[in-house]
Amino acid sequence: MATSLLRIPPPQALLRPLVVPERLLLGPGPSNVPQRIQAAGGRQILGHMHPEMLQVMDEIKAGIQYAFQTQNQLTLAISGSGHCAMEAALFNLLECGDTILVAINGIWGQRAAEIARRLGANVYELLKPPGEYFTPRDIEEGLVQHKPSVLFITHGESSTGVLQPLEGLGELCHRHGCLLLVDAVASLGGAPIFMDQQEIDVLYSGSQKVLNSPPGSAPISFSERAREKVLRRKTKPRSFYLDIGWLGNYWGCDGEPRRYHHTAPINSFFSLREGLAMLAEIGLESSWERHRANCARLCQGLLSLGLELFVKDEKARLPTVTTVRVPEGYNWKDITAFLMDNHAMEITGGLGPTVDKVLRIGLMGCNSTGENVNRVLRALRDALGSCRRSRL
Amino acid sequence: MATSLLRIPPPQALLRPLVVPERLLLGPGPSNVPQRIQAAGGRQILGHMHPEMLQVMDEIKAGIQYAFQTQNQLTLAISGSGHCAMEAALFNLLECGDTILVAINGIWGQRAAEIARRLGANVYELLKPPGEYFTPRDIEEGLVQHKPSVLFITHGESSTGVLQPLEGLGELCHRHGCLLLVDAVASLGGAPIFMDQQEIDVLYSGSQKVLNSPPGSAPISFSERAREKVLRRKTKPRSFYLDIGWLGNYWGCDGEPRRYHHTAPINSFFSLREGLAMLAEIGLESSWERHRANCARLCQGLLSLGLELFVKDEKARLPTVTTVRVPEGYNWKDITAFLMDNHAMEITGGLGPTVDKVLRIGLMGCNSTGENVNRVLRALRDALGSCRRSRL
Repeated sequence: MATSLLRIPPPQALLRPLVVPERLLLGPGPSNVPQRIQAAGGRQILGHMHPEMLQVMDEIKAGIQYAFQTQNQLTLAISGSGHCAMEAALFNLLECGDTILVAINGIWGQRAAEIARRLGANVYELLKPPGEYFTPRDIEEGLVQHKPSVLFITHGESSTGVLQPLEGLGELCHRHGCLLLVDAVASLGGAPIFMDQQEIDVLYSGSQKVLNSPPGSAPISFSERAREKVLRRKTKPRSFYLDIGWLGNYWGCDGEPRRYHHTAPINSFFSLREGLAMLAEIGLESSWERHRANCARLCQGLLSLGLELFVKDEKARLPTVTTVRVPEGYNWKDITAFLMDNHAMEITGGLGPTVDKVLRIGLMGCNSTGENVNRVLRALRDALGSCRRSRL
Repeated sequence: MATSLLRIPPPQALLRPLVVPERLLLGPGPSNVPQRIQAAGGRQILGHMHPEMLQVMDEIKAGIQYAFQTQNQLTLAISGSGHCAMEAALFNLLECGDTILVAINGIWGQRAAEIARRLGANVYELLKPPGEYFTPRDIEEGLVQHKPSVLFITHGESSTGVLQPLEGLGELCHRHGCLLLVDAVASLGGAPIFMDQQEIDVLYSGSQKVLNSPPGSAPISFSERAREKVLRRKTKPRSFYLDIGWLGNYWGCDGEPRRYHHTAPINSFFSLREGLAMLAEIGLESSWERHRANCARLCQGLLSLGLELFVKDEKARLPTVTTVRVPEGYNWKDITAFLMDNHAMEITGGLGPTVDKVLRIGLMGCNSTGENVNRVLRALRDALGSCRRSRL
């Protein structure tokens, strides 16, 4: 063309090659992606309604049923991150005016409360200091006082490193006419959870933690009780993209012919399928044991370095994300930057209520190995010797 | 462990390898992914807040500004499909009680109206038969009658094959105190669009059409006028995941330090970056011309086969998706199945208002070639000779 109508020229930065350095990702996620899952993500794509794609989705569904230990038909992957699955749970469970009780002992409860408020729900907060967990008595008091229709609680609190015991909570909620909604983004595959036996009504997770897939898809499942609450809604969920009725149909959960709903993230699903397949091959119990054992080794090593673990109660420590207090006299940013610059290794500082207080070390899926425990301990020893103790 | 607590065994289907057949995707999207973009999607990931990842996001932003021809600071990619971007636009622009006028001449207007109703907006519909487009006079009558604060219109109506002329619509909307929201999922890169010159207030697209990336991310941009409307909101957007204030901060659009919002789909962004880079290398005007020329060749060939194009007005034909009437006496499902089974090629039937009426053929990005025009015409000739004319 003789004269260009374009006023914005092609950006120079885009004309250079993509740069992606190799890192050992030992933060609270995303975790490194094994070669097999990378390869699946790099495959040519299929149409979102092709029979082979629907087959992959059926396999993902079966894989989630295994990982969640559930027979729920309404089980699928959300086309978004764990945050998106949190919204999917709340958008479908809550109507304007519904009452929800949110157990808050870290950032995830705060986020759930924020989203529920945006939906016009009556939100009550049950609070615990970061690093602690809720007892059945705490929960029961909240249920009696507020009479919620939904209780939100976080199984793996990655901002504080706490593993919430779930035993008895489902039964307790149901005795009080309440549904149990559990966030297992950071814990799934790393600590035991039994959706059906523990009577959890909605459970969701993410792809980028123990499942070692890239972020961008998120397993979720609804119990029959939860499905019935959705069916009884007087108003449609605010989101069409996250409407579990439409999604359930697209995922073949309702026995009806599958209708086009949205274009799924095809090769995010390929990757998720492979992550679930690797978990099925290893076996859930082996995976739980591996995360338990490597977390225990890491904690022992951190104590040997003279560091202080943030979560006092040993059995309440999340096997996938370990929190350790920032050692006195150090700036946490110096330590994380030192590991990144000198060891090409990510560990992170705190998040939300733990900002400036802790360092967080994640050992998830393929990254949960004895070798990585040794690597991160060596790197930390190196950092403690090299970083300036600025505040002494 | 001696006794297993697991009641759900590992699914057998997951213990077999992932199966992904190779297909030529000549439907309305997703389109095939070139090797370079596949490779980017298969790279090891980075943390979502690593400086190199923020750099990739900056490059994506610059690439979208080029593709949209805009200098808007509030330009980024949504962590979801085109549908998710449609929700992002409506969730941020509309509050309960706001009035929106939706131009409906196919499925995308229908979807936008559905989402706007879920948000509690007053929704007025401006209707045209499928295959037609809106004139400035149509729009002005609607603006005068309904006094909306937002007008929604679809640039590339992939369900009908219509390209909507946008000239003058922005100015018209602004004269009536209304914002212009445009869906360019199916048209971006395939037909000229100039966000700033055409005074478009919110524009979004998808990754899986001309950009040839896998589905799962979606470019979006807000004009200063649109940003101001968002800032004047009395209520927070219902969605936290899609809150453009938070997203704009995460994408470095507001000059503030970037805060963690959600975990972005890291390698969907790698792929999108490469798709935008390829568009920048080819150049927008070359890309438009290529889509125009190959669409013209395809239309000529379809007419030579004795087929009838669904969109009568030649200049209103979408260069990326061509609609042709199902030839009399044939079942469209026989034709699409024949192409899939005998040519490993996807073309699709209609969608929404064009179901059972048309076949849709997409030539997008790397798939818009003379060779693919010839291949699909040969395959169609083959199908017309081989499929049973059941209704004669």
